[in-house]
Amino acid sequence: MRMAELSTESGVPVATIKYYLREGLLTPGERTSPNQARYGAAHVRQLKLIRALMDIGGLSISEVGAVLEAVKDETPTHDVLGVATHGLKMPKVAVDDEGRAWAMARIEAMAAENGWEVKPGDEVVEALVGVLCTFRELDRVQFLDGLDHYARLAAEMVEKDIALVAAMPDTESIVETAVIGTVLGEALFSVLRRLGHQTVSRKRFTQGS
Amino acid sequence: MRMAELSTESGVPVATIKYYLREGLLTPGERTSPNQARYGAAHVRQLKLIRALMDIGGLSISEVGAVLEAVKDETPTHDVLGVATHGLKMPKVAVDDEGRAWAMARIEAMAAENGWEVKPGDEVVEALVGVLCTFRELDRVQFLDGLDHYARLAAEMVEKDIALVAAMPDTESIVETAVIGTVLGEALFSVLRRLGHQTVSRKRFTQGS
Repeated sequence: MRMAELSTESGVPVATIKYYLREGLLTPGERTSPNQARYGAAHVRQLKLIRALMDIGGLSISEVGAVLEAVKDETPTHDVLGVATHGLKMPKVAVDDEGRAWAMARIEAMAAENGWEVKPGDEVVEALVGVLCTFRELDRVQFLDGLDHYARLAAEMVEKDIALVAAMPDTESIVETAVIGTVLGEALFSVLRRLGHQTVSRKRFTQGS
Repeated sequence: MRMAELSTESGVPVATIKYYLREGLLTPGERTSPNQARYGAAHVRQLKLIRALMDIGGLSISEVGAVLEAVKDETPTHDVLGVATHGLKMPKVAVDDEGRAWAMARIEAMAAENGWEVKPGDEVVEALVGVLCTFRELDRVQFLDGLDHYARLAAEMVEKDIALVAAMPDTESIVETAVIGTVLGEALFSVLRRLGHQTVSRKRFTQGS
């Protein structure tokens, strides 16, 4: 199809498609003349994925670029869900040695409970250290009493995630599903939690206090 | 304390504190002379909260402003967790009538299961409609087979959230806790899930395929 049709199919305006091409987010079409190229179903899918990462995941153009770059690389399948994480926003805060030791003790206990590996220095572990220390900084350490419980809830979601990803037929769709599952799954859970907050807090605080 | 001390206490550079004052994020100190003001423990707490919302929640300056504005307003307590949501990023996607009807049917079934209220047009419900339709757009509707299950996980987290918020002694700390719990709780869960992904996918895909 021509670019105009690609635009109609994907719902993405032509000017935006051109911008994605310039930024290298979208694979170039097959040149049919110096001024024209042909696009296929893969391009429609790519465009929908880009839009989802931006509109639902809140990723910037450059973050989308980083995620898609990671996806394109030949990736050993076992690291596929880790790759989906590269380029995604990860909380980063400066933490002192005392704070780090305090957080790592809690994280290691929680990980042991769930059979999870924890490597100090790992990007995700570092992010978790930062989140824990911030709860403490803000005098809300009581939220962490539920850490084991939260981890168990996350583990239940992880099990479902992995099953869905593993059911995909080839590496390309495994990687794509991992990205979609990570980003959209996160958004889904956040929105569900906020919906719960609305209803339950309305009930709780209207009747109670 | 003077601004220099406020900077040391909070770990936020003086130039950044001045910027937050200009942007109205931080309550002005008590003027002691035309060029000096005195700050207190409340300012330290405010600065830590601003940093947490930005570094952990990934909020922009203007988003932090919107959240703090909502917090400052006299808010009926029952809406406190709803308020924490204002100013927070919420996925927004255009959805056609057919998509909306399809998504609403699923959402209403899920909500009935959990005893949650669902008002069409509500900001959170709209976001959920968008997320569901995007999963379908991307041909990953199988993720939604777990919708009831995900909602139950979210509901468990909500119960803990509400208990923690309700334990706070006054409206101000209730609202602040709601904001912290919503934003940092979201980050905590995301990071836990990614940690689970790393470990479980490494195990699963190394042994399995």
